[in-house]
Amino acid sequence: MSGLDLVIGGGTVVTAADSYAADIGIRDGRIAQIGQGLTGADRIDATGLLVLPGGIDAHVHLDQPTSDGTTMADGFASGTRSAAAGGNTTVLPFALQIRGQSLRACVEDYHRKAEGYCHTDVSFHLIVSDPTPQVLGQELPALVRDGYTSFKVFMTYDDLVLNDAQILDVFEVARRERALVMVHAEGHDAIRHLTRRLEAEGRTAPYYHGQAHAQIAEREATHRAISHAQLIDVPVVIVHVSGRDPMEQIQWARARGLKVHAETCPQYIALTADDLRGLNMDFDGAKYVCSPPPRDADSQAAIWQGLRDGTFDIFSSDHCPFRIDATGKDTPRARSSFKYVPNGIPGVETRLPILFSEGVGKGRISLQRFVALTSTNPARLYGLYPQKGSIAIGADADLALWDPTLTRPIRQAQLNHGCDYTPYEGMEITGWPVRTLLRGRTIAQDGVPVGDPTGGHLSRGTSEAFA
Amino acid sequence: MSGLDLVIGGGTVVTAADSYAADIGIRDGRIAQIGQGLTGADRIDATGLLVLPGGIDAHVHLDQPTSDGTTMADGFASGTRSAAAGGNTTVLPFALQIRGQSLRACVEDYHRKAEGYCHTDVSFHLIVSDPTPQVLGQELPALVRDGYTSFKVFMTYDDLVLNDAQILDVFEVARRERALVMVHAEGHDAIRHLTRRLEAEGRTAPYYHGQAHAQIAEREATHRAISHAQLIDVPVVIVHVSGRDPMEQIQWARARGLKVHAETCPQYIALTADDLRGLNMDFDGAKYVCSPPPRDADSQAAIWQGLRDGTFDIFSSDHCPFRIDATGKDTPRARSSFKYVPNGIPGVETRLPILFSEGVGKGRISLQRFVALTSTNPARLYGLYPQKGSIAIGADADLALWDPTLTRPIRQAQLNHGCDYTPYEGMEITGWPVRTLLRGRTIAQDGVPVGDPTGGHLSRGTSEAFA
Amino acid sequence: MSGLDLVIGGGTVVTAADSYAADIGIRDGRIAQIGQGLTGADRIDATGLLVLPGGIDAHVHLDQPTSDGTTMADGFASGTRSAAAGGNTTVLPFALQIRGQSLRACVEDYHRKAEGYCHTDVSFHLIVSDPTPQVLGQELPALVRDGYTSFKVFMTYDDLVLNDAQILDVFEVARRERALVMVHAEGHDAIRHLTRRLEAEGRTAPYYHGQAHAQIAEREATHRAISHAQLIDVPVVIVHVSGRDPMEQIQWARARGLKVHAETCPQYIALTADDLRGLNMDFDGAKYVCSPPPRDADSQAAIWQGLRDGTFDIFSSDHCPFRIDATGKDTPRARSSFKYVPNGIPGVETRLPILFSEGVGKGRISLQRFVALTSTNPARLYGLYPQKGSIAIGADADLALWDPTLTRPIRQAQLNHGCDYTPYEGMEITGWPVRTLLRGRTIAQDGVPVGDPTGGHLSRGTSEAFA
Amino acid sequence: MSGLDLVIGGGTVVTAADSYAADIGIRDGRIAQIGQGLTGADRIDATGLLVLPGGIDAHVHLDQPTSDGTTMADGFASGTRSAAAGGNTTVLPFALQIRGQSLRACVEDYHRKAEGYCHTDVSFHLIVSDPTPQVLGQELPALVRDGYTSFKVFMTYDDLVLNDAQILDVFEVARRERALVMVHAEGHDAIRHLTRRLEAEGRTAPYYHGQAHAQIAEREATHRAISHAQLIDVPVVIVHVSGRDPMEQIQWARARGLKVHAETCPQYIALTADDLRGLNMDFDGAKYVCSPPPRDADSQAAIWQGLRDGTFDIFSSDHCPFRIDATGKDTPRARSSFKYVPNGIPGVETRLPILFSEGVGKGRISLQRFVALTSTNPARLYGLYPQKGSIAIGADADLALWDPTLTRPIRQAQLNHGCDYTPYEGMEITGWPVRTLLRGRTIAQDGVPVGDPTGGHLSRGTSEAFA
Repeated sequence: MSGLDLVIGGGTVVTAADSYAADIGIRDGRIAQIGQGLTGADRIDATGLLVLPGGIDAHVHLDQPTSDGTTMADGFASGTRSAAAGGNTTVLPFALQIRGQSLRACVEDYHRKAEGYCHTDVSFHLIVSDPTPQVLGQELPALVRDGYTSFKVFMTYDDLVLNDAQILDVFEVARRERALVMVHAEGHDAIRHLTRRLEAEGRTAPYYHGQAHAQIAEREATHRAISHAQLIDVPVVIVHVSGRDPMEQIQWARARGLKVHAETCPQYIALTADDLRGLNMDFDGAKYVCSPPPRDADSQAAIWQGLRDGTFDIFSSDHCPFRIDATGKDTPRARSSFKYVPNGIPGVETRLPILFSEGVGKGRISLQRFVALTSTNPARLYGLYPQKGSIAIGADADLALWDPTLTRPIRQAQLNHGCDYTPYEGMEITGWPVRTLLRGRTIAQDGVPVGDPTGGHLSRGTSEAFA
Repeated sequence: MSGLDLVIGGGTVVTAADSYAADIGIRDGRIAQIGQGLTGADRIDATGLLVLPGGIDAHVHLDQPTSDGTTMADGFASGTRSAAAGGNTTVLPFALQIRGQSLRACVEDYHRKAEGYCHTDVSFHLIVSDPTPQVLGQELPALVRDGYTSFKVFMTYDDLVLNDAQILDVFEVARRERALVMVHAEGHDAIRHLTRRLEAEGRTAPYYHGQAHAQIAEREATHRAISHAQLIDVPVVIVHVSGRDPMEQIQWARARGLKVHAETCPQYIALTADDLRGLNMDFDGAKYVCSPPPRDADSQAAIWQGLRDGTFDIFSSDHCPFRIDATGKDTPRARSSFKYVPNGIPGVETRLPILFSEGVGKGRISLQRFVALTSTNPARLYGLYPQKGSIAIGADADLALWDPTLTRPIRQAQLNHGCDYTPYEGMEITGWPVRTLLRGRTIAQDGVPVGDPTGGHLSRGTSEAFA
Repeated sequence: MSGLDLVIGGGTVVTAADSYAADIGIRDGRIAQIGQGLTGADRIDATGLLVLPGGIDAHVHLDQPTSDGTTMADGFASGTRSAAAGGNTTVLPFALQIRGQSLRACVEDYHRKAEGYCHTDVSFHLIVSDPTPQVLGQELPALVRDGYTSFKVFMTYDDLVLNDAQILDVFEVARRERALVMVHAEGHDAIRHLTRRLEAEGRTAPYYHGQAHAQIAEREATHRAISHAQLIDVPVVIVHVSGRDPMEQIQWARARGLKVHAETCPQYIALTADDLRGLNMDFDGAKYVCSPPPRDADSQAAIWQGLRDGTFDIFSSDHCPFRIDATGKDTPRARSSFKYVPNGIPGVETRLPILFSEGVGKGRISLQRFVALTSTNPARLYGLYPQKGSIAIGADADLALWDPTLTRPIRQAQLNHGCDYTPYEGMEITGWPVRTLLRGRTIAQDGVPVGDPTGGHLSRGTSEAFA
Repeated sequence: MSGLDLVIGGGTVVTAADSYAADIGIRDGRIAQIGQGLTGADRIDATGLLVLPGGIDAHVHLDQPTSDGTTMADGFASGTRSAAAGGNTTVLPFALQIRGQSLRACVEDYHRKAEGYCHTDVSFHLIVSDPTPQVLGQELPALVRDGYTSFKVFMTYDDLVLNDAQILDVFEVARRERALVMVHAEGHDAIRHLTRRLEAEGRTAPYYHGQAHAQIAEREATHRAISHAQLIDVPVVIVHVSGRDPMEQIQWARARGLKVHAETCPQYIALTADDLRGLNMDFDGAKYVCSPPPRDADSQAAIWQGLRDGTFDIFSSDHCPFRIDATGKDTPRARSSFKYVPNGIPGVETRLPILFSEGVGKGRISLQRFVALTSTNPARLYGLYPQKGSIAIGADADLALWDPTLTRPIRQAQLNHGCDYTPYEGMEITGWPVRTLLRGRTIAQDGVPVGDPTGGHLSRGTSEAFA
């Protein structure tokens, strides 16, 4: 056996199944040995640390155009730097098709935006906003074959929403090509109806965003998406599930044997609708505007139960950063009505610490479940496994070293994203990633990104949802 | 006390609560006395018979225009004659708005079609196919005040379907004006998707209508309608529920305290999807094409359970007659694809005997439940109570005398509708109405309509769903 | 037609189905005519009043021996006087078999206690505490044939509890003889376990009775009773259901088509566990000690939902009166531990006003549902229909005249039971019975019993649960 | 790093999370290295094979006395040899307390039976049949501290059944001492009732065992056990769940957040009630008599769904072998009534191949889930992890090498248990363990046990159910 390039020594290795003391030996960017007393050309001392598979954030928005001229606060450089600092080694951003645009051209466009800037590996999900016959019949099949094996459809947002006929068409393609569809499940017409009513009542503060995006509308769309998937007989992922009601639909579907997967996010365990009140029903609430919006304590409890019992397969950030200034959320239009506040909050850097501290640290989930939710399951669900998502011989040496005892609050000043605030400002966290390695190279240390952008784009295989 | 015009003597009076031997005394078309040994100017001997409130068929299509030029087999004359012969004294047909048409003009049009032709009383539900600001803001409120207190919306059919935004608008008006909305809950896009797929596979026989109108699509639309009603906080009736899956949604909603009412029909207990096979996958199956289509034995069992346990408030015919000839179902287009077969089957005359024989006669429901489902509940739900729907002092003397022992099969030759077939041909029935009285006047005897058309249009009050 | 003895004129007649203005004509103690303008030998003016079927209280304990020497506060005289004043015309007390005693002898014993003392009609349920082969094989079958068509079994109480084998044996007899079994469903061992734990902790105040009788123990026993009934294939009534958890079991069973009936009581809508705290965790809480105990606001809401939607068939008092003095609840032993506080509270006189005021008056249930729950359904369920339970020609003229606008609080000083307190002291009630008639004779007026004890014992037919 | 004793080279390593090509290096009986190109003193070629953690069979009966003088077909020697041949490295048999016996004495007795005879490691669960104050207050706490961290209680069987009070007492001790209780959940009285009825009808063939042990009785006891555990607030394992009904209770409990774990067994996916018919309702059916009995195809489907979706944590054999001769099942008494047929079937050797072939091979579960159900989860649930249950550095080198392509039927002639038949005779299996290693030593090869009995007794830690 030839020599090892690097040994991570003295730590506790954690996978979705196990936890044990061992050294990890890396050669050519891959995990080559796991065992006791390994030696190599280089060595990182992990004594007292947990060695986890690098986080995979399967739901990240970077450098997307917005229809109203606001600017997304993160491009691929800052977004992946932020991700790396937060313990991630792979993120899955979206290639968002603009209506009228060829999807292939869209993908190429995102490649241009990303190439040479990524500090983590990336791989694009395809947002289908214009399922023309050309897109359905030729572009999507070809793109799946090229390794873009997941699509996303929206059931709301004026410039993205697909109607039911279009969703069914996309599902058909997904079944045929064995691509996994992610669904943003909120009922567009219901939200618009409530929005108009609230506006008519003069309720235009950011707080009312949460009322317009009622949980009933999310539940309805969830049921609808599940029904469409059942009709076509295709697996589906309901993304960013916010509360008890849509969860109930997912559990009901699974008990019937339907292949419905589910994702939730930090905002649904760490924020509530009350955060949107701001300091005093003022515009500060805009910092927390995202869709679906955070709900209440009862839904938080339900989400935790779902994280524990397997209702949720994956835990992602839905990082979608807008600055709280005139380039982002704070525009005259946004001040005129919550409906113009750009939807989305930053979170790619804080996702893992929040779940670790609130989940593992407070005894709500095990370390194994943490790894499964944040790395192994995303890898399996989106066709990155076994290259990514675990600590196993032959896998990429994508690792995060965690100090489970390190306690410090989340502070915007210490984050690396392009946003000018964090919705979690001041939240006390115990357990932080202290070093992140991508294919054996350190890409972040002590919360600071290091090194050149060595991340690349990953071609993906078929989702295990089709197994 | 002044004299009685008519006494129905020696029968067993049945209401939604009770059953007892008594004479019924009628004066001026109303029930004036119930008791023993009544005498009056005239007398009908009801010895050995059950005396029930006249049937109220709350879901009847008469003389509606069709978009493809086919002709509905019943107008108000034959339709209400047929209803009377089948034990009914009131039917609720639809005034169907054609897109572009004023709803007020539509209602007047139907009044013209009906006036002078009705053998039972009638009252129009309003089908809203074009909810313009004028319709929503002015016509509907005015029509509700004029006693048209129920609307119907369709979630499918090209020329009737409302989108979710429109449904929410109609629900808003209904809440404000306290009108009850009936919902035809089937998912339009899902049906179209399945239809296209079946056609592409060459599956165009009438049988495939049942596959295109999948129960999943009905369940999804039921959930959607319930969610919209919950969002607006308005009661709703899911009409012609066909099977276990949509029923489950209704029960789930009720257990949460939502005001969701439900209707089912004879075709869902007496027919199955197999009937649409015809003799040998031929066009004979078109006789059974209706929407939602009949399901399977498991759904039939579920429907019976729901009739018994109160999941269903009302049992209507959804009479929607088309001849199985070139004026109706048997057109070249219909032979080219099931999707052109006019949707609907006749049933206003057979509704009550089928439920009596299969339900009361076979011990599945009590006589009281029979009366509740077919007369008292429809009257209460649609604002006709206490004038209609029971045997009570002061109520209209709308009565049906039933011979619970009379056994004979259903035969097209003996029916009075304008259709040229019955889907229940040959079905053995025990228990038939032998006399029907509208406001004290006999309108049918031994299955034959008698007398002039004395039925009128009823202005209705607010539904008890708002109590 | 011969003359009427009595006419109740000018009121509004209410049945489980209807509500209408009419006079009621009575002859020979039965209802002979219903109609307008009736005349008779005597007349009661019911202008402005509701005329309801007399209440049937299907769950009443009178003159039962207690194992600890305390005395029940009501015998048949005061108990039925109290019932009459509260709008009832029939009560169903228990003939309680003492272990070792012949059930036939027991029944005769209760007949002796009752005969000549009853102001309402009565009919005994049989409490089976000692199902010997003699009882199972001979006494019960003979007693059913004699019209004692309902049994009660206890799943708790040291001197009454049957084990599962005994319950199954009783269920077998019930199925064979078509008798309806009432089940007191609380898990004996669970209650004893909790009681011992509470006592060990020094928690002996009456308040802890509510903790010892945990809702989990009631839910478990409810599931167990349902399972036993399902195994034997016999209908069953779960009596005095207290909260959301046992209700859920009943709804689950019904959705599967099982013949499970259910009863609830005033204490579960008008009291909560907090009432057992007394003034300050003192012995005053003993006034509210009954089993199952009152629960919380969430369970109250669930109970109301169940009263509305038909989960509950009947609403009874579970009147079980003990004085709050040394003859009843306030003994040295009872002060030493809640477990010695006699279980039971008075309520036969307040049952109907509480449900009327809180239910009908506050829009939670309709007048029809009120009549169904308190009179028609008990009559049907326990084989008294059609002699009792409705206003119908030929039925006993058992009537209660209600003034729906009369407002006054419940006051012990104005009650007619033998108890020295009411748990509902001071509760404001709108809607009181102002006159009660048994077979046409007034037995109470304005809250005061009048006349001689003319009530008799009723032999009953088979329960409609077997239909 | 010192040299490796043994390398398992060229295989595919499988854990509950992962699957990857790697060599495994063993030193001193533990896993010391995982990686590529390992060398050691000895080498086993695993090319083309899967290398799994050795199976842990958490539910095995060995050398238990029976109350009727029959003999269990396996002691510790043959039982563990059979287990080893079937791919297991640890089995958890029971130390069964005979009433009147000290539990400590009982445990010592079983140690004597086992010591020196075991070919796999073993660890005793404690069957508590006589929870005296001595047992509850002193023996159980001391035994838990000594590493016997799981108890089993029976809700049926004359000589083992505990009543509810006793179960609650055992649960209290379990909560205090953090021991995990396994529950055999079948309702004793219900089974006895049905048995008597069947016997009275002359239905005494083995087939009727399945009818006597009705699924309703299992469901009821499951609900009861869950309720007791909820009352005491202690985790619990429902063992050998047989069908859809008890599963539903477990899912209901988990959705409420209760700590209810569940086990199922091969007989519930590979056998049905019809197998108990024997060849022609003859005594051959006795070969399949176990409790709970196999159910029907619908329950099999439910069990598979539960194995897939996590309802079941573990999959055990419930090996409980009796010969189909006069020493076991075929006694004159057993021929007189099914109730005397010893309950139990052999299965320790066939458990893993059946789940592998029917589950992994037919695409119903993943390899990871297979490992979780049969090794990792049992280790975690019963306090053996991380010493046992995975392939991880530092863990015991307990391994099973599987040939996933090897196809041959199950044949009694090739099994190593002491029983004279297998209920799975002739069942075609693809995927067999071809080598089993206990702490690095081969204990079985190609279905044949090899070597001396080197297995020992394992002291266990606290179950992860308490985490």
